[in-house]
Amino acid sequence: MAELWSDQARYATWVEVEVLASEAQVRLGRVPSEAVEDMRRARVPAAARVAEIERERDHEVLSFLAAYCEDIPDDSARWVHLGMTSYDLVDTALGHTLARGTDLLLRAARRLRRVLVDKALAHWDTVCIGRTHGVHAEPTTFGHKMAGFAFAVDRSVQRLLAAREAVAVGTISGSVGTYALIDPFVESYVCERLGLGVEPAPSQVVGRDRHAQLLQAVATLGACVEQIALELRLLQRTEVAEVEERRSSDAYQGSSAMPHKRNPTTSERLCGLARLLRGYATTALEDVALWHERDLAHQSVERVVLPDSLSVGHFQATMAADLVETLAVFGDRMRAGIDHTRGLVFSSAVLADSLSNGVERERAYRAVQAAAYRTATSGEDFGVTLGKEGMDVGPLDPTRFLVNHGVIRSRLESLRDLED
Amino acid sequence: MAELWSDQARYATWVEVEVLASEAQVRLGRVPSEAVEDMRRARVPAAARVAEIERERDHEVLSFLAAYCEDIPDDSARWVHLGMTSYDLVDTALGHTLARGTDLLLRAARRLRRVLVDKALAHWDTVCIGRTHGVHAEPTTFGHKMAGFAFAVDRSVQRLLAAREAVAVGTISGSVGTYALIDPFVESYVCERLGLGVEPAPSQVVGRDRHAQLLQAVATLGACVEQIALELRLLQRTEVAEVEERRSSDAYQGSSAMPHKRNPTTSERLCGLARLLRGYATTALEDVALWHERDLAHQSVERVVLPDSLSVGHFQATMAADLVETLAVFGDRMRAGIDHTRGLVFSSAVLADSLSNGVERERAYRAVQAAAYRTATSGEDFGVTLGKEGMDVGPLDPTRFLVNHGVIRSRLESLRDLED
Amino acid sequence: MAELWSDQARYATWVEVEVLASEAQVRLGRVPSEAVEDMRRARVPAAARVAEIERERDHEVLSFLAAYCEDIPDDSARWVHLGMTSYDLVDTALGHTLARGTDLLLRAARRLRRVLVDKALAHWDTVCIGRTHGVHAEPTTFGHKMAGFAFAVDRSVQRLLAAREAVAVGTISGSVGTYALIDPFVESYVCERLGLGVEPAPSQVVGRDRHAQLLQAVATLGACVEQIALELRLLQRTEVAEVEERRSSDAYQGSSAMPHKRNPTTSERLCGLARLLRGYATTALEDVALWHERDLAHQSVERVVLPDSLSVGHFQATMAADLVETLAVFGDRMRAGIDHTRGLVFSSAVLADSLSNGVERERAYRAVQAAAYRTATSGEDFGVTLGKEGMDVGPLDPTRFLVNHGVIRSRLESLRDLED
Amino acid sequence: MAELWSDQARYATWVEVEVLASEAQVRLGRVPSEAVEDMRRARVPAAARVAEIERERDHEVLSFLAAYCEDIPDDSARWVHLGMTSYDLVDTALGHTLARGTDLLLRAARRLRRVLVDKALAHWDTVCIGRTHGVHAEPTTFGHKMAGFAFAVDRSVQRLLAAREAVAVGTISGSVGTYALIDPFVESYVCERLGLGVEPAPSQVVGRDRHAQLLQAVATLGACVEQIALELRLLQRTEVAEVEERRSSDAYQGSSAMPHKRNPTTSERLCGLARLLRGYATTALEDVALWHERDLAHQSVERVVLPDSLSVGHFQATMAADLVETLAVFGDRMRAGIDHTRGLVFSSAVLADSLSNGVERERAYRAVQAAAYRTATSGEDFGVTLGKEGMDVGPLDPTRFLVNHGVIRSRLESLRDLED
Repeated sequence: MAELWSDQARYATWVEVEVLASEAQVRLGRVPSEAVEDMRRARVPAAARVAEIERERDHEVLSFLAAYCEDIPDDSARWVHLGMTSYDLVDTALGHTLARGTDLLLRAARRLRRVLVDKALAHWDTVCIGRTHGVHAEPTTFGHKMAGFAFAVDRSVQRLLAAREAVAVGTISGSVGTYALIDPFVESYVCERLGLGVEPAPSQVVGRDRHAQLLQAVATLGACVEQIALELRLLQRTEVAEVEERRSSDAYQGSSAMPHKRNPTTSERLCGLARLLRGYATTALEDVALWHERDLAHQSVERVVLPDSLSVGHFQATMAADLVETLAVFGDRMRAGIDHTRGLVFSSAVLADSLSNGVERERAYRAVQAAAYRTATSGEDFGVTLGKEGMDVGPLDPTRFLVNHGVIRSRLESLRDLED
Repeated sequence: MAELWSDQARYATWVEVEVLASEAQVRLGRVPSEAVEDMRRARVPAAARVAEIERERDHEVLSFLAAYCEDIPDDSARWVHLGMTSYDLVDTALGHTLARGTDLLLRAARRLRRVLVDKALAHWDTVCIGRTHGVHAEPTTFGHKMAGFAFAVDRSVQRLLAAREAVAVGTISGSVGTYALIDPFVESYVCERLGLGVEPAPSQVVGRDRHAQLLQAVATLGACVEQIALELRLLQRTEVAEVEERRSSDAYQGSSAMPHKRNPTTSERLCGLARLLRGYATTALEDVALWHERDLAHQSVERVVLPDSLSVGHFQATMAADLVETLAVFGDRMRAGIDHTRGLVFSSAVLADSLSNGVERERAYRAVQAAAYRTATSGEDFGVTLGKEGMDVGPLDPTRFLVNHGVIRSRLESLRDLED
Repeated sequence: MAELWSDQARYATWVEVEVLASEAQVRLGRVPSEAVEDMRRARVPAAARVAEIERERDHEVLSFLAAYCEDIPDDSARWVHLGMTSYDLVDTALGHTLARGTDLLLRAARRLRRVLVDKALAHWDTVCIGRTHGVHAEPTTFGHKMAGFAFAVDRSVQRLLAAREAVAVGTISGSVGTYALIDPFVESYVCERLGLGVEPAPSQVVGRDRHAQLLQAVATLGACVEQIALELRLLQRTEVAEVEERRSSDAYQGSSAMPHKRNPTTSERLCGLARLLRGYATTALEDVALWHERDLAHQSVERVVLPDSLSVGHFQATMAADLVETLAVFGDRMRAGIDHTRGLVFSSAVLADSLSNGVERERAYRAVQAAAYRTATSGEDFGVTLGKEGMDVGPLDPTRFLVNHGVIRSRLESLRDLED
Repeated sequence: MAELWSDQARYATWVEVEVLASEAQVRLGRVPSEAVEDMRRARVPAAARVAEIERERDHEVLSFLAAYCEDIPDDSARWVHLGMTSYDLVDTALGHTLARGTDLLLRAARRLRRVLVDKALAHWDTVCIGRTHGVHAEPTTFGHKMAGFAFAVDRSVQRLLAAREAVAVGTISGSVGTYALIDPFVESYVCERLGLGVEPAPSQVVGRDRHAQLLQAVATLGACVEQIALELRLLQRTEVAEVEERRSSDAYQGSSAMPHKRNPTTSERLCGLARLLRGYATTALEDVALWHERDLAHQSVERVVLPDSLSVGHFQATMAADLVETLAVFGDRMRAGIDHTRGLVFSSAVLADSLSNGVERERAYRAVQAAAYRTATSGEDFGVTLGKEGMDVGPLDPTRFLVNHGVIRSRLESLRDLED
C-alpha cells in the first residue's frame, strides 16, 4: 500500500495515462503512431529528476512532462499531453490509484470477515456471559459475538465496493471540462483501458464527494474494527481474562517497571487508529465544495488524507485479522463468568416462567427483582433464594437461552461462502 | 419531518410494533387473539401521561407500557410486550422511523436533482466564463455547471438509497440478541409488515454503523448542496452579478443600515447548514463501537443527531431546490463576463492552434504567455496583440470551446428520465 | 441556561443594548433625553409579535425594532437604533449572553471541582488497584483517582475563564466596522455597562475565533467529564463492582426484561454528551473564516451550536457533580481487588528490591517475570513462588507503594481553597 | 520543526531526561556520581540500532535503554532508569519537545502578527470597498482589513501561550503516578532543569486534555490564517484583482493549458492546511478519556497528530507571513472598486443624512431604497438619481466614512510594540 503512493508509482501511472491518451489520438489520426512508440519506450522519469525541475518551475505536472520528454525524441515529444490539461492527467491517474488502493483494502477487509466467520463457527457453542452496560445480562456464545462483527465487516465491504465504484473514474475533458480541445473519444479510450468510469459532467476535476465517500467507508470500517478491539480489550481486563492476544514476539515485555504485566496493546492500537480515520473522513467532507470549475484548496488536504486514510485503514484491518486469527479464547473462564453472579443472570428466564405461569407482570417483576436483590446482598445462590420464596423454577442452565440460536448460525453460513 | 420525530409519533410507532408482535404470538399460539384485539383498540398513550409516569420510573419504555396498558383490560394487558426487551421495541421502531425520514429526504433530494436537470437543459447554451482558482479560465455554459451539480446530487441519491437499506432493519431478539425467550418468527413477522430487514446477528441492538452510514450520506448531500450554494454566492458578488436569488418576500430588506443591498442570504444559509451536517456525521461515527452486547452512551447522542441531521438535511435540500428553481440567470451579464479579459480566456485555443501549426510546445507556450502578459498590462485586446506578434489566429469566439459539448448533454438526458 | 437562550430573553437583552446606546447618544447631545425615557418605559416586545412581523419582513432585527417601537411615541421612536447596523445590536447582545452562559457553566464546573476534591480527600487512603491497559498494575487510592480528575476539571475552569474573556466583547461600529456613522463613545459606553470588552478592529462582527475558543473549552471540559464517567463505568462492571451510582428514583428499573440489573446509565450518558460537544466544537471552527467584512454562513450554525453546546455542557457538568457527590464507594471491594492476582501487583516492588540488592537489571527482570508467570498459571501466591525461588522479599503490603503519596495530597489542598 | 520530531531528536531528549534523573538520584545518595558521568559521556543511541533491538523486543523504551547502555560500563549502566517506568521518560521528554515545538510555532505566529501590523499601517489609508455577504457595502481601508487579521493572530498567540503552559509539564511518578518507587525530588529536579511544570496528580501519564488544548490552539490559528487567505483569494478573483500574490519562482506557470493564468495558489493551499488542522484537533479530543490510570489507544494517534499538527501549523503560519509580506496591493484598483456601483455604497450615509434631517425612519429607508433600485437598473449615478428625487445630499466621498477611523489605528499601535 505504501508503494502505491510513492512518487515513483505516481509517475509510472502518469506515463501510462499519457501513452494511452496518445494511442487514442493515433486512432483519431491526430498523432503519428511512431510518436506513441517512442513514448512507450521512454523511461518513467525519476522522482529526483522531476523534483529538480520542479524547484525551478513550481509546477509538478509540467516538471514531470519535461523530465519524461528528456527520454523522447523531439519529433515525438511534441505530441505528448496533446490537448490535455494537468488535471486530465492527475485526476485520471488518481482514480486509478484509488481503485487499486481500495482493492488492497478490500482484500484485507475480506480476510478479516473470513477470520471472524471462522472464529464464530469454531466457537459457536462456547457459552459466555452477554453484558449490557458492562453488566452481566444473559448468556450468549463467543461465536455469536464474532458473528455480529463479521456482519458489520461485511457491511463495510459493501460500503467499500460502492465507494470503489465512486472513486474509480477519470476525466480527460480539458480546462473547464467541456472537451474544448480534445475529443471525448480520448477519455473513453483511456478510462476503459484503465478500468475506470467517466465523470459525466466534469469541471476540470472529478467530484470530490467521491473521495469523501471513500474516506467515510474507510472510517466506518475503522469503527467496526474499533468495536471488535474494544470487545477484546474489555475481555482481557484482569478481572475478566476470557481471551488473550498473542504476541508478535516472545521477547515481548509488557512494562519496563512491572514484570507481571501482559497488556492488550494490539487491541488498544486498533482503537487509536479508528480515531485517526474519523479525522480524515471529516476533513475530506470539507473538500467537496470547490470554487466554480475547481480551486486548489483541496489539493494539500488530499495529498495527506487519501494516502494516509487508505494506509492506516489497510494496516488496521490487517492487524485486526491477525489478532482475531491468533486470539486465545478461554472457554472455561467464560463458563465460570456465567456463574459469577450465582445465578442472577437467569432472572429474565425466571421472570418469563412466572409470566407464563399466569402471574401478573408488575407483581412478577417485583418478586424476581426482590429475590435478585437478596441474592446480591446475602451471598447465597439465586436458585436457593427463589426456592425459599416458593418460586418453583427449573434448572438454571445457560443452554435454555440458546434454544433459538441456530437461526443466527444459518444466517452466518451465508457469509462463509463469500469469496475472499 | 419534524412531526416524524415527535414523542407522539414515536409512541404511535411503538404501539404498532407491540400490536404486530402480539399478532405474531397469536399465530404461534402463545397469546389469545382477544388480547390483540384489545391492544389494537387501545389509544396511543399521550406523551404527557408517559412523561408523568417516567418521572417516577425513570425508564421511558416501561412508562410507555404502563400508560398503554391503562387502556387495555387486565386480562389482555398481561400479554403486551411478551418475551421482548425494551430495545426490541425501540430499535425496531427506530428503523421504521429512519426509513420514513430517509424517504422524505430522498423526495427532497430527487426534486433538487430534477430542478437542476431542468435548469441545466434550459441554460445548456447560456455561455459564461469558467473559472479555476477564482480566475477566468475558458468559456463554458451555465447549463454545464448545473449538470455537474445534478450528477453530484444523483450520486447522493444513490448513497441515500444504500443508507436507507442499511438503516431499515429491526431486531426482536431479546436481551443479548439470542432469541432466548422469543421465537424468531415474531421478528420476521413484525419486520416484514413494517417493510424492514432483520439484523442478522443482533446484540440487543442493531449495528450503529448503519446510522453512521446514513448521517454520512446526509452530510455528503449537504456538501453537494454547499457546492451549489457556493457557486451561487460567488456568482452573486457585486462585481460578477451573473445570477440573483429570488426573495421569499417582497418586503425583504437586506440591511438595516444600507438600503441598496441585496444579499444572497439563502445561499449563505445553505453553506452553514452543511457545516452542521458534517458535525453530526462525525459524532455518529463515535457511536459505532459499543461495549459488549451494547451500552447506553450512544443513546443521548442519537436522540440529537438522528432527528437533527435528517431535519436539517431535508430543510437544506428543499431550500436548495426552491433556490435553483426560482433563480434569475442573467445571460447577458455572463456573455459580458467572457469579454472581461479582452480575449485572454482564448489563450488555450491559441496555444492549441500554435501547436497544431507545428510550433514546439515550450516555445509556443512562452510566446502565448508573453502576449497574454502584454494584453493584461497594455489594455489592448488579446487578438490585437497576437496580430502584432504575427500570430495568425482565427476569430476568438466562445463557441469554438463548445464543439464537443453535446456529449455531456446526452449523458445529462439520462437523468431527465429518472423518477422523482 | 435554557431560559437564557429563549427568544424572549434575547429581546430583553436587545432592548437593554438599544437603551444603553441611546443613553450614550444623549451624552453626545445627539438624542433628546426624553426619548431614552420613553424607550426605557417601553415593554420588551413579545416574541410572538416579532415573529408576526418577521413573516412579512424576513429580517429579525427590523421586525424586533418595529415591534419595540409600537410601544414608544413616534417622536421618541425615531431615535431608536440611531447610527447602528443590525449586528451592532446582535453581536453585542450575543457577547452579553455568552458571558452569562459561560458564568453558569463555570459555576457548574467549579461545583464539580469541589465535589471531586471532597471525594478525593474523603477517600485519600481508600486503597485500590491502579490499572494500566485495563490490567492490574500497582496499588493506588481512590482519592488519588479523584484528585487527577479534580485537577483536569481545574484546568478546564482556567480554559473557560480564558474563553469567557474572549467571547465577552461587543462591537457598535457600523456596517463594516469603521464607526462611519456612529461615535466610538457609544460602543465604549454600552460595552462598559454590560461588562464587555470591545472588538479592537471590528468588521461589522466580532471575530468568530472567539466562539470557537469557547466551544473548544466546553468540549474539553466535556472530555474531562467523559474521563471521569469512563472510570466509573469501568469500576461498575459486574466483575469489578467497586463503586455504584445512586439512582434518582427508588422506583428505577434497570431493564424491562432482566430484573436483576443495575446499570450505570448516568455515567454512560455523560460519555455520550462528550461526543455531542466534540461535534459542536469541530463545527464552530469552520465558522471562523468569513468572507470579507462578514458573510452569513456562520449564522445558521451559531444558532444551533452556541446554545446547544453551553446547554449540553452545563447539563453534563451538573449531572457529573451529582453523580460524584452521591457515588457509593466500596472500600472493601477495592481492597479485595488488590489481592485478585495473588500478589502479582507487587512485581515492581520486588524488582526494585532485587535491583537495590545489586542484581543486574536484565537478570532481575527475567527472574521476576518468570515467577510472575508461574504464579499466574499455578494458582499459588506470588510470595510463595518468590520464596521457592529463594527471593527474599518483605511483606507484600500496598502501603509500601504509598510512602510518597502525601506530596499529591498537599498539591490537592491548594484546590480546596479555591472559590466555588 | 521536522528535525524536532525525528527519532534521533527524541532519543537525544530521552538521554537528557535519563541523565538528569540520575543526577537527582545522586543528590539523594541513591546513585554513585561516577555512574552519571558515564551516562553523560555515552552517545545518544542511533535510531537504527534502537530499531534493530525493537524488532526483537517490541518495546521502544526498553530497546532504547538497551542501546544506550551498550555505551555505558556495566557498573554504571545498572543505575540507568532507576525507579522509573517507561512513561516517566516518554511523557517528560514529550513535554519538553512540545514546549520547543510550540516555541517555534509561536515565533512564526508572532512574525505573522508583525507583518500584518506593518501591512496595516502601510495601507491604513488605502481606501477600498468593504463587502458583506460578498456584496459592496461601505468603504473601508485595506489597512483596516489587515488590522482585524492582526488582532485575530494576536489572540491566537495568547491561546498558544496558554497551551504552551498546559503542555510544558512532565511527570516522573512511576507506574500509576504514586511515586511508589521514586522520590518526588527526582521529578522536581528534572522538570525544573527542563523548564517544565509538574503534573500535580499524575496517573503514569500527564493529562491528555493538555494536548487537546494545544491542537485546538493550533487549529484556531489555522482558521485565522484561513480567514486571511480567503480574503486574499476573493480579492484576487479576475473581476476584482485588487491584490496579487508574489511567486516564489519567476518561471512559474499557472496552467499547463492556459498560458494567460496567474493563480492564487498560495492562498488556496493555506485554506487547505486549515482543514487538516481542524481534523487533528478533533481527533486529539478523543484521546482525553483514558482507561483508569492510562491505556494505550491514544499513543498511535499522538504519534501522528502531535508532530503533524505542529508541523503543518508552522508551515502554514510561515507561508502566510511570506505571502502577506510580499503581497502586491493595487490601491488604484481598490479606489475604482468603490465606484463600481456608481455611488450606491453611499446609501447608508444618505439614509443617515435623511434621518438627521428629521425624516421618519421607515419613510427615509423606503425613499433611499427606491432611489438605489432606480440607480441599479437605469445605469445613472446614485447622486444624479437622488438629485432628481429632490434629496439634497453632500458630496459622495469615501472619506466621510472614515472620520472615526483613527480610534482603530491607535488600538493597532499597541500591537506594534509587542516583541516578535
